[in-house]
Amino acid sequence: MSESKKFILQEKDIPQAWFNIIPSMPVKPLPMLNPSTGEPLKAEDLYPLFSKEAADQEMNFSDSWIEIPEPVRELYKIWRPTPLVRARGLEKALDTPAHIYFKNESVSPVGSHKLNSAIPQAFYCKQQGVTNVTTETGAGQWGAALSMACKMFGLELAVYMVKISYNQKPYRRSIMQTYGAEVIASPSMSTRAGRDIITAHPNYQGSLGTAISEAVELAMSTPNCKYALGSVLNHVALHQTVIGLEAEKQMEMAGEYPDTVIGCFGGGSNFSGISFPFLRHNLHDGYKTRFIAAEPASCPKLTRGVFSYDYGDEAGYTPMIPMLTLGHNFSPANIHAGGLRYHGAGAVVSRLREDKIIDAVDIPQLESFNAATVFAKAEGIIPAPESAHAIAAAIREALSAKEAGEKKVILFNLSGHGLIDMTAYDRYFAGDLSNYEVPDSEIEANTASLKKI
Amino acid sequence: MSESKKFILQEKDIPQAWFNIIPSMPVKPLPMLNPSTGEPLKAEDLYPLFSKEAADQEMNFSDSWIEIPEPVRELYKIWRPTPLVRARGLEKALDTPAHIYFKNESVSPVGSHKLNSAIPQAFYCKQQGVTNVTTETGAGQWGAALSMACKMFGLELAVYMVKISYNQKPYRRSIMQTYGAEVIASPSMSTRAGRDIITAHPNYQGSLGTAISEAVELAMSTPNCKYALGSVLNHVALHQTVIGLEAEKQMEMAGEYPDTVIGCFGGGSNFSGISFPFLRHNLHDGYKTRFIAAEPASCPKLTRGVFSYDYGDEAGYTPMIPMLTLGHNFSPANIHAGGLRYHGAGAVVSRLREDKIIDAVDIPQLESFNAATVFAKAEGIIPAPESAHAIAAAIREALSAKEAGEKKVILFNLSGHGLIDMTAYDRYFAGDLSNYEVPDSEIEANTASLKKI
Repeated sequence: MSESKKFILQEKDIPQAWFNIIPSMPVKPLPMLNPSTGEPLKAEDLYPLFSKEAADQEMNFSDSWIEIPEPVRELYKIWRPTPLVRARGLEKALDTPAHIYFKNESVSPVGSHKLNSAIPQAFYCKQQGVTNVTTETGAGQWGAALSMACKMFGLELAVYMVKISYNQKPYRRSIMQTYGAEVIASPSMSTRAGRDIITAHPNYQGSLGTAISEAVELAMSTPNCKYALGSVLNHVALHQTVIGLEAEKQMEMAGEYPDTVIGCFGGGSNFSGISFPFLRHNLHDGYKTRFIAAEPASCPKLTRGVFSYDYGDEAGYTPMIPMLTLGHNFSPANIHAGGLRYHGAGAVVSRLREDKIIDAVDIPQLESFNAATVFAKAEGIIPAPESAHAIAAAIREALSAKEAGEKKVILFNLSGHGLIDMTAYDRYFAGDLSNYEVPDSEIEANTASLKKI
Repeated sequence: MSESKKFILQEKDIPQAWFNIIPSMPVKPLPMLNPSTGEPLKAEDLYPLFSKEAADQEMNFSDSWIEIPEPVRELYKIWRPTPLVRARGLEKALDTPAHIYFKNESVSPVGSHKLNSAIPQAFYCKQQGVTNVTTETGAGQWGAALSMACKMFGLELAVYMVKISYNQKPYRRSIMQTYGAEVIASPSMSTRAGRDIITAHPNYQGSLGTAISEAVELAMSTPNCKYALGSVLNHVALHQTVIGLEAEKQMEMAGEYPDTVIGCFGGGSNFSGISFPFLRHNLHDGYKTRFIAAEPASCPKLTRGVFSYDYGDEAGYTPMIPMLTLGHNFSPANIHAGGLRYHGAGAVVSRLREDKIIDAVDIPQLESFNAATVFAKAEGIIPAPESAHAIAAAIREALSAKEAGEKKVILFNLSGHGLIDMTAYDRYFAGDLSNYEVPDSEIEANTASLKKI
């Protein structure tokens, strides 16, 4: 065990290839289905929507390693490799025998891990001659990342931003505009999906599901335009594995190996990114590391969702995805971890969860902010409200190690910083936030019509 | 010359000692004077106000190297060493033969270089048994840094925040509160200086000078309490030399040496930090590097100020400092680079400027935001409005190298990111910002009563 606080890699240590977990899975994920025919989708079916390479990666069930293109690695160098940090301050604050490490993805120029996938997705569009890209964003982390990536490759980008965030999070909107992106409050009049909702509910403040519908519609109706998604899908999780691959080398530098790996969970991208590279040693080499997805108690798809084919968006434009879902019309409580307010989990994570290969915990909002504050005071970094869920789960593990008197090695992903989320902290300190437990009846109502798998 | 984009050091490369430039200066800075007696100050005279060690460092004219205490290096490890980056994107955007490098201090947890001095200042207070600390903050960068540092050492902190920033920059206020600091809008009723101003001008929105007066008054009237300042003074510049010392090693890794070194300029701390370690080779080894302080055209103390003894604050509580000054009652235009809105330059920089050892340029506000936007689109990082002045100066240099067809090596300090300053960018894009050139008459009026040196 080293005495260092941070474990620092050089640019040459940025991985050469992403790790695709699908070939290693004991049971493969089910295919996506065409919503109109019910037929399994092939990669070609996704070509109209996504870049060809992203679509191919989405359907790649055979290659464990997929090469990272050199222009993508070049741009990764803007902030990668990211540090792995031994959280000695937090260990001391908790008085735990556990060793706690975190991978610090907050050092990216947009403040989160989202760039890891934004850059390759933009690159693949550019490579095939696409000129325009669309996407949606909730809290704005993904939109900011894709704005930066598109600017780097000279692509035009239109971002549908959930209306309530557009109004309440002007900083993230300005960040996207600074990178030259067009930002539209969703629902908008620019799409049929948006117009329909505005007509029916003039004051509707938007949702991620609606924004996805709008972005997909615009991509499908605009020449030379593709759509990009920031989580949920296999190729997004794939790109995020740079996190875990770097962390694996850094844990080696620290002379330890994690007993527990933790990521917060919205659609699955940062959890997959930190976990899958370590999980491969469970699947191939008999390691016994435990993997914990930390989701908000107000959006508990992994612990209380139904395994079923469901849409990725609200209007039902996307393929049917085999997912643990709360129903695509589920409207998550307005918690401040906007990036975790999504109804379903990606196909791979859902399969792994069904097969009990990964664990999940539900974190109440107040516990997440308490954890965030303890962490900020101990480690000096104010975490994003999303990442705070991973911290809360890590604290639970560290305290149970203390109770058991066990030395345990815990690794979590700090997916982003909270410097642009201070309104949430203000409300927490003012006592304005509350917990929200979803009633069973709400989940039942939203999933009643879904066909269980 | 290396092909890398970033040059990355390990924790062991964090300097063991800060570099004190005073022993190397051909003409030493004049002493500070006691404002009531007019006598030169001794270190002991500063003990009531500052920690003993900070006061001793302030007056240290003999030691070129001052050891960095181990607990300070330990906390530096939270984010140091910071990367040195070859700005290939910016070079390409400018189509210049110049090689542009920047030291990226924006990766600190509070987003700026200010932590480099906040941590040792808090440590020295803790070491001598101080329990309470006071300071002031304008835009909030220094206040956020000292809040984090004080929390790390278990010190209570009260921050006087300029009232207009307190109301307009709630995020920075919340950051300080998250670290547990008390934040008071200045002018306040808690001090005589504050009460006097509120009584005379009930709607006064505050200034850095007033906030300093309040913080100094509180420190002097509170048992076991010291005051800490984030710029201007010798010991603050000293602590910031970690920036340049790391950059020196990293330029070596890059196989180049800077022809020009640039920092933005408020009170002098980040400019001194990046410059002094390189400047020592000019002073000792005959190197010919050019040093450029980039100040806002609306606060042009280095180019148009008067070399004179002046107060550091508005109420006249501080010692008299030998400085290039616009007068301590000078009220800088309300530009968005709040950290550069200060009337004077520190004693060392003022002396170096008088002796033509360093250069200075004035950057109009619109040029700074244009440079910031070019940089963000080329390098992916949105700079703080303060740092944008250094970028603007670097762009001027790179374009003149292009005109001359010269390969030139330019290094600047990216003192912070702008993710919490997006309101300023919004206003820039909306065309709401303007330039402000200070009329000679205003400078003359404010400096008329000062005794020139």
